[in-house]
Amino acid sequence: MTDTVDTTNNAEEAPERPTAESGVIEVDAVEADAIDSELDSTARRAGSTDARRPSTNHVVVARTDVEWLGRYLLGTWADVRLAARDLTAKPEMQRIEGLSLDEHRQRVFGQLTLLVQNGQVHRAFPKSVGGEDDHGGNIAGFEELVTADPSLQIKSGVQWGLFGAAVLHLGTQYHHETFLPGIMSLDVPGAFAMTETGHGSDVAAIGTTATYDEQTQEFVIHTPFRGAWKDYLGNAAVHGTAAVLFAQLITQNVNHGVHAFYVPLRDPATKAFLPGIGGEDDGLKGGLNGIDNGRLHFDQVRIPRANLLNRYGDVAEDGTYSSPIESPGRRFFTMLGTLVQGRVSLDGASVAAAKIALTIAITYGNERRQFTAGSDTDEEVLLDYQLHQKRLIPKLATTYAASFAHEQLLTKFDQVFSGAADTDDDRQDLETLAAALKPLSTWHALETLQEAREATGGAGFLAENRLVGLRADLDIYATFEGDNHVLLQLVAKRLLSDYSRRFAKADFGVLARYVVEQAADRAVHGSGLRSLSQRVADFGSTARSVGQLRDASAQRQLLTDRVETMVAEVAAALRPASKLSKKAAADLFNLHQSQIIEAARAHAELLQWEAFTEAVDGPTGLASGMDDGTRVVLTWLRDLFGLGLVEKHLAWYLMNGRLSPKRAQAVGLYTERLSARIRPHAQDLVRAFGYGPEHVRAAIATGAEKARQAEARDYYRAQRAAGTLPAPEKKPGRTR
Amino acid sequence: MTDTVDTTNNAEEAPERPTAESGVIEVDAVEADAIDSELDSTARRAGSTDARRPSTNHVVVARTDVEWLGRYLLGTWADVRLAARDLTAKPEMQRIEGLSLDEHRQRVFGQLTLLVQNGQVHRAFPKSVGGEDDHGGNIAGFEELVTADPSLQIKSGVQWGLFGAAVLHLGTQYHHETFLPGIMSLDVPGAFAMTETGHGSDVAAIGTTATYDEQTQEFVIHTPFRGAWKDYLGNAAVHGTAAVLFAQLITQNVNHGVHAFYVPLRDPATKAFLPGIGGEDDGLKGGLNGIDNGRLHFDQVRIPRANLLNRYGDVAEDGTYSSPIESPGRRFFTMLGTLVQGRVSLDGASVAAAKIALTIAITYGNERRQFTAGSDTDEEVLLDYQLHQKRLIPKLATTYAASFAHEQLLTKFDQVFSGAADTDDDRQDLETLAAALKPLSTWHALETLQEAREATGGAGFLAENRLVGLRADLDIYATFEGDNHVLLQLVAKRLLSDYSRRFAKADFGVLARYVVEQAADRAVHGSGLRSLSQRVADFGSTARSVGQLRDASAQRQLLTDRVETMVAEVAAALRPASKLSKKAAADLFNLHQSQIIEAARAHAELLQWEAFTEAVDGPTGLASGMDDGTRVVLTWLRDLFGLGLVEKHLAWYLMNGRLSPKRAQAVGLYTERLSARIRPHAQDLVRAFGYGPEHVRAAIATGAEKARQAEARDYYRAQRAAGTLPAPEKKPGRTR
Repeated sequence: MTDTVDTTNNAEEAPERPTAESGVIEVDAVEADAIDSELDSTARRAGSTDARRPSTNHVVVARTDVEWLGRYLLGTWADVRLAARDLTAKPEMQRIEGLSLDEHRQRVFGQLTLLVQNGQVHRAFPKSVGGEDDHGGNIAGFEELVTADPSLQIKSGVQWGLFGAAVLHLGTQYHHETFLPGIMSLDVPGAFAMTETGHGSDVAAIGTTATYDEQTQEFVIHTPFRGAWKDYLGNAAVHGTAAVLFAQLITQNVNHGVHAFYVPLRDPATKAFLPGIGGEDDGLKGGLNGIDNGRLHFDQVRIPRANLLNRYGDVAEDGTYSSPIESPGRRFFTMLGTLVQGRVSLDGASVAAAKIALTIAITYGNERRQFTAGSDTDEEVLLDYQLHQKRLIPKLATTYAASFAHEQLLTKFDQVFSGAADTDDDRQDLETLAAALKPLSTWHALETLQEAREATGGAGFLAENRLVGLRADLDIYATFEGDNHVLLQLVAKRLLSDYSRRFAKADFGVLARYVVEQAADRAVHGSGLRSLSQRVADFGSTARSVGQLRDASAQRQLLTDRVETMVAEVAAALRPASKLSKKAAADLFNLHQSQIIEAARAHAELLQWEAFTEAVDGPTGLASGMDDGTRVVLTWLRDLFGLGLVEKHLAWYLMNGRLSPKRAQAVGLYTERLSARIRPHAQDLVRAFGYGPEHVRAAIATGAEKARQAEARDYYRAQRAAGTLPAPEKKPGRTR
Repeated sequence: MTDTVDTTNNAEEAPERPTAESGVIEVDAVEADAIDSELDSTARRAGSTDARRPSTNHVVVARTDVEWLGRYLLGTWADVRLAARDLTAKPEMQRIEGLSLDEHRQRVFGQLTLLVQNGQVHRAFPKSVGGEDDHGGNIAGFEELVTADPSLQIKSGVQWGLFGAAVLHLGTQYHHETFLPGIMSLDVPGAFAMTETGHGSDVAAIGTTATYDEQTQEFVIHTPFRGAWKDYLGNAAVHGTAAVLFAQLITQNVNHGVHAFYVPLRDPATKAFLPGIGGEDDGLKGGLNGIDNGRLHFDQVRIPRANLLNRYGDVAEDGTYSSPIESPGRRFFTMLGTLVQGRVSLDGASVAAAKIALTIAITYGNERRQFTAGSDTDEEVLLDYQLHQKRLIPKLATTYAASFAHEQLLTKFDQVFSGAADTDDDRQDLETLAAALKPLSTWHALETLQEAREATGGAGFLAENRLVGLRADLDIYATFEGDNHVLLQLVAKRLLSDYSRRFAKADFGVLARYVVEQAADRAVHGSGLRSLSQRVADFGSTARSVGQLRDASAQRQLLTDRVETMVAEVAAALRPASKLSKKAAADLFNLHQSQIIEAARAHAELLQWEAFTEAVDGPTGLASGMDDGTRVVLTWLRDLFGLGLVEKHLAWYLMNGRLSPKRAQAVGLYTERLSARIRPHAQDLVRAFGYGPEHVRAAIATGAEKARQAEARDYYRAQRAAGTLPAPEKKPGRTR
């Protein structure tokens, strides 16, 4: 059978349709020619005939092996994830809607103690203090908590991922022995006191000072003005009895920049602030109200010299400063670099939230009926409407891309933090990768939750269906642990510095045209500038035919070319900056800021696409044991993601002569067709996410809607059969 | 002075910058030539020189007359709006964050009684029952309530705009005399029982039945299955003692379609459900928790025959049905049409919410500093960053467009409901206009609130800064009173039927190329198909020069051409449907659903653009007494809106040969330049919205941030002056 799409549609449009599993469809393994003629046909949009010709005898049945794919998605730390999902399945770990601020805070604090009892939170700590030195596993387990309650994920992240991790990574043996046990056991709940009211993403400019007093061998912590109050700190409003505090280290009248200090905050017994310390409750927030965010200020508060977390910078008794890292700038970024795990885990948690959202919306969309279209009596299933497919299925593709990309990020993170691959370059690559992926996945989660909410109508607005609560909680993911735009700007700076390093001595005019060395044989690039496999000028000839758009190498070229060209253009535009005054250079940079950030976004999208491609037909994918049918479905999904990116940036491809108007029009048709093809597999593709009813917990995704629809249809069917249905006043003439 | 932009930037970049009022800039009244050469210059992006040449001796100072513009924005019902703002300024009318569900519901119910005491809610009712027959004024006042608490707006909308309005518009004298007094006084809080669990936007298919029993002269209200439970009804969970209920009217074994009935629900004293009636609380929602939404079901509940709201359909004692409207379809849409005011008021409330959001984000963006760029000591004001401008200023332009468009919608509404212009065509135009504008403004409000939230970082996430609460409340505006996509589909059907009516007998092949009669002299079109002022084929020659993009007629052509072409394409594609089976026709429609909805969206965007243009330099604008400086600023803003639409759909213009790649690139440069030019006026433009601190109520928009920034800068300045600022370890090399 070659008439793939029609077969599918027929199977889906029968009143009593089979499940996606039984509704398998057949497809040619090689389709380029066939799709070509399909797209050339003027009748293509009517869809009544399919001009596809078999170009090979090898026929593959498109299907989704849900169980296999589920395991594949679980990735390297599958066991940890499954254990974490067992835990998040327990009602006592889950959010209860409608709690008051205080009740929610207390509940989440109680859940943290359950995590400790359960041994869930110590994986990342050294074996010497009872941990497991398992960094990737730690994050994998941690990010799964988001399905129980994002407040639980973030509050435990504050305690162990920020407060504890700072003591671990910025402190030395004394700090580990002295402070980690209390942190790990939750005897000492703590805040991560970095952000100030006046300074968020610009940590280097914080105002709090820690001035060394040689006389008493103490640091004096001080808040010089209102803008330097620490702000938005989890655990600061109620529970925290200590903090890792970031302040400008001043000794011998020299400011050595931002360092971290261990600072007791409250009397553990009375919970009263210690002398010189004050604060405020940040109060109600848009979400994450299980966390007690608050503000802190310090009036000449003294702490022992030893409380400086001194791995990267130390002060001797006499006030002499020393550091293993000479450059203050590099030292600062090294210290901050240890905190990359926050971004890694937000990336993973956002992917998990998008998976929950799509599980809800696609399950409901597959059961809910609304409006009769092609029949007098049977209403249409929502997901059979083209628009509904267009709203949800590309988001499914992006979620798969983000999921595979996150697995790569987590692997990279584990390699660096385990020491398996821990050079400066590795660390920089990790930071760039995290800075690239976290913005995309956090925004994607918000967009997906919102689309799912709107696609489920009034039902989606009820708290019992979870979408609004998850969206409210994840809202802040877009700006914490680094504002998304600031992170993308970091990525762009890395791209520009990679670019200029490679061409430091070359003539620029030449470079702008010859964009970069051959790299067709290079596998996925974790970060940095992705190289183009051939000269831009040659591109037109290699993907002339419309059908080749679905070829992976054509997609790669289109996406890579865009990144390369944008980086080259920005680099050219900024080139005069070296000869300008600081002010004029800043103005020049500012004139190109949007362009710079757009280049970084393009790069991050390419990284997701590469990760998806690697998972499907790169070495990892080929070695995975994936069956051909599943590969067909995942390839459609990857194509939808890749061509969806091209469609999103279509104006760029047209303005820059990379696609002809005719080929550009084909892109939109393709993504529409691909969505329709994937539609019968959509339910299987969300089932493969592996979240059960105990994780999804949405009343509309339990099959209740299906039962209601069946009851209504049975009612009318019985009435019609019995002749008791009142006649309509006039036969309604619905479609002309 | 001709060097406009640089003057502005210099004024804005001084450390102690003047307010926008004093930082006036000068601009040529006629700029087309100048901008042309500016854009042709390769140095244009560096912005260091401005090649603009004066092409006229008439020099206008761009400025915003805030007081005048504020009055202009208030529109026809300025007095009502100002009175409503006095009311919403009162703390007892305002939302308190963090109330429990019950507390919030009780508070809002109490506020409704204050509205009654204040005489705010009866404007739309007839003079015969103590009202004022003032329909436009009623909506204007009502939509202002959103700034106090969206729950208050919507709960009062349920009581008087839906429940009361249904009795008024669907009932007759008996109902007015019997039921309106209790509704108006809030003695009878009531629900508007239309939506069912199984049917939202498809009201015609609801399952609840009202079967006439001649023996007792009663209607029997019945819920035949679970999907036919009434759902999401405000006032149903707790407060409602009656409802206007929509059900299939059955008499003499004929179903006459959906009609409305007045149904008592609860014992007014005990609040217990009356016999046969049951229900559930919808519980916590994503927002609007001051409203007690709930579900209702009916088991053979009997009501008197007279409780049928019988204006458009009646049942005699003997069970004979009669109606002044013969066609059941038209009757149904006439009954639903009386409810258009819900959509009108959501449109207006969404505009108000976007105004509040931008007032907060722009005020904060004008005070907040982050990162040093061009200086070692002074941090940049957020709104001086190009990206920040790009995030907020186009949204300011869209908000102005939506505000002017709403004023036109409200005027049309008032004309229809007052009877001043109340033909069938007028009613249809009103419904199409409301269906076009409500989706755009509700989505715009959500996007603006979200962008404002992210642009204000962690502060934006705190409830005290209002953005998250407003966003949560307005979320549902996108899908209630008609799902936005369903509404756009209604608009598209109107466009298609207008199109086919005009060309019913013409040969289609000709029509696809000649798109429509001359209409250059027609003013804004409230609805229906906007005509193109010349043949599409001619377009290329009329706007060949880049500079002409800013010409209003060029923008109109680009936007109109897109609507016309899309409608013609869809019409051509759907043409075979008349010869197909119902099923095949539905499939064909479905294949073009996205395209159809995109055409409607384009039409709605054009309507906003026309309204903006009319307000600036149409007859209304010219007669308004606007001074030239304000007109320059508003023209920039209108151009930013218009060219922003072209930029958003740039791929379409390129694929369809309407813009050359070079001209297309100019569009993006233009919107960037326009945002930068408007930037110094941004604060004035939000001040003109006229919302004071008592309406905005956001801690970050009070000037507190400005004071904090000043304190921090003073601190460092004093330390530097005194030589007490600790030296940096090394001179930081911030740029490069």
